[in-house]
Amino acid sequence: MKPLSDAILNSQKSAIRKLFELLIKSSDGISFGIGQPDFTSPDFVNDEIIKALKEHKTQYAPALGLPTLRRVVAQKFQNENNMKWVETENVMITNGGSQALQLCFATLSNPGDEMILSSPNFLSYIYLASYYHLKLVEVPRLENYAPDLESIRQSITPKTKFIMINSPNNPTGYVYSKKQMDKLVQIILENDLYLVSDEVYEKFLYNDHIHISPASYDEMAERTLTLNALSKTFGATGLRLGYVSANKKIIGMMEKYGQYTTAGVNHPTQYGAIEALMKGNPDMPQILQSYNKKRLFSLKRLKELQFDTIEPFGAFYIMPRLNPKWNMTSEIFSNELVKEEHVACVPGNGFGSYSNNSLRISYATSDELLEEGFNRIERFLKKKSLI
Amino acid sequence: MKPLSDAILNSQKSAIRKLFELLIKSSDGISFGIGQPDFTSPDFVNDEIIKALKEHKTQYAPALGLPTLRRVVAQKFQNENNMKWVETENVMITNGGSQALQLCFATLSNPGDEMILSSPNFLSYIYLASYYHLKLVEVPRLENYAPDLESIRQSITPKTKFIMINSPNNPTGYVYSKKQMDKLVQIILENDLYLVSDEVYEKFLYNDHIHISPASYDEMAERTLTLNALSKTFGATGLRLGYVSANKKIIGMMEKYGQYTTAGVNHPTQYGAIEALMKGNPDMPQILQSYNKKRLFSLKRLKELQFDTIEPFGAFYIMPRLNPKWNMTSEIFSNELVKEEHVACVPGNGFGSYSNNSLRISYATSDELLEEGFNRIERFLKKKSLI
Repeated sequence: MKPLSDAILNSQKSAIRKLFELLIKSSDGISFGIGQPDFTSPDFVNDEIIKALKEHKTQYAPALGLPTLRRVVAQKFQNENNMKWVETENVMITNGGSQALQLCFATLSNPGDEMILSSPNFLSYIYLASYYHLKLVEVPRLENYAPDLESIRQSITPKTKFIMINSPNNPTGYVYSKKQMDKLVQIILENDLYLVSDEVYEKFLYNDHIHISPASYDEMAERTLTLNALSKTFGATGLRLGYVSANKKIIGMMEKYGQYTTAGVNHPTQYGAIEALMKGNPDMPQILQSYNKKRLFSLKRLKELQFDTIEPFGAFYIMPRLNPKWNMTSEIFSNELVKEEHVACVPGNGFGSYSNNSLRISYATSDELLEEGFNRIERFLKKKSLI
Repeated sequence: MKPLSDAILNSQKSAIRKLFELLIKSSDGISFGIGQPDFTSPDFVNDEIIKALKEHKTQYAPALGLPTLRRVVAQKFQNENNMKWVETENVMITNGGSQALQLCFATLSNPGDEMILSSPNFLSYIYLASYYHLKLVEVPRLENYAPDLESIRQSITPKTKFIMINSPNNPTGYVYSKKQMDKLVQIILENDLYLVSDEVYEKFLYNDHIHISPASYDEMAERTLTLNALSKTFGATGLRLGYVSANKKIIGMMEKYGQYTTAGVNHPTQYGAIEALMKGNPDMPQILQSYNKKRLFSLKRLKELQFDTIEPFGAFYIMPRLNPKWNMTSEIFSNELVKEEHVACVPGNGFGSYSNNSLRISYATSDELLEEGFNRIERFLKKKSLI
């Protein structure tokens, strides 16, 4: 038979999914691998979807999304993200943040263009680059997981089309500072680039860290594509409801591309999204308090267990490096840990080229499982005489 | 600013959507342009989605879809489509038929490959070809809208990767006969090609026409990708719930690609789909009876109005050619008709290169509007002294 798509054949199945498949074979498995919060979507959101279903709103919605929802998203960007320029016409509703990302890559890319990414980073960016025939330029993060903006600047060539950022970051938990964002904006403007900003973790911030949307800089309005979703903020990963803002020309292109590749978003769910974005998640303060406790506990335990640990200030992940003395790649570590102790942590090579000695731990699980999981990691390390 | 995606810039906004935008400006508009049935999804389907929402099933479903739904789809393909080889592992759940199509194009294509299509045909196929950097080979249909299988055979080159079919067809209503399908299968096998079969209109058949799935031929199991959706059969275009079957290797590739580009399908809706596919649409016999009446009425009126009309045997479209005496392209005809009489019919150039003198009329509307629409077309033709 004739050859199938090289780009897809060469991409890997997500390390997270592979790990999960290993884990479900055990009855007492603990997952530190999961990329979703441990709460589900609020009733006031689900109720609006139910109402729409009862009213038989099950025929096509417009390809760009319901106009009311697009207006609410525009207001959200204006009010919460200080993106004063965003109007309804700058917004498209998508099948989750993932499709919003796909639309960004699709509209910005011609084969052979280059994209710059701080690494480690979310795996989808890496494979989307290959699906859109981009040359991926991974710039290693600094020791503390900050973006290496000087290296990023030096990596720019005439073929560079855009820089991709995700702050708060999956997997490192790193959050861009105002000073770093200023510098990134300067780099973008000086080199006539686009910027794609994935802000799905914007609400998950600890201590006094704040979220800065690059599209809040006036001079970035025309060249920033900002994406977000209900998934993380509302515990609604399974509703597949995302949104993206961009200049009007790009939104027009996204409309065409979206029309031929998915033809819109689940119609009744869009009514739930209107309600969600108008009200916000009222449980967020308690969730953050609880997540911060989990974050600090994880940090403490990782230090006790002699991991090389960098404090994360956002999202719900922590990415420790294995102690160099252990002389082990994280892939081997995570495989043996799941087999021997039934605890799943995602190995760092699931996030690019510069994290073979790191693990991603998601602490968005119950306090009991978090404690038990770390106790098992301790037992694992002791059994192997590593600590 | 740097150039955006050529492939998207070069694709057109759907003629159907453009027309609809014109039409909504008038208060008494009648649309013959719509690509969805005039009924909505049944309560027994919506009720299952509501139940899932009440049970807070709003977190990620597996990237391939719920295992139970995939099993039900496999059974549907076995029982209704005689595709005895299809197991759960050969099925993926998608964001509507559109994403299923996207996944077929993505997995089969490398840039520079060629795809063959009978023209006129559904517009998405044409633009998906450009998005995946395929060379599109349009083979004109015969006078009666049958596929020209001899020309298709002659259009095959060493670079041909797959043939795309849609039977019953949008926009022509043409339905492949057993003899034609036998011949197509022979062509595919002789030339080591893949076949993508879009079967979303499979239930809309008139007279004694039957639907034949090419994947029901044993020797086609490995090389046919079959897609379908709840959209047309269940009046559920807005639920965005589709599915695709293929060999296991291709489904594995679709899983990866889908994971990075949309990350699964609305979770609660999948429970509705289980119910829908297990029970089928119990209203289908009455719907077909009513659609057949509309089809025959449309045929009669078009003949009276001196269109060159070919009887469609499937779907809910009819595609008459303008009378050559009128000396008008269908784009001008449809524009003037919508402006002067507020009736929207999609011009043929929205369906490829060989239908500039045809109109697509969807008769999936109420009997009253159908009658009034044709009366307005009659008035339009008389005003212009064309009849």
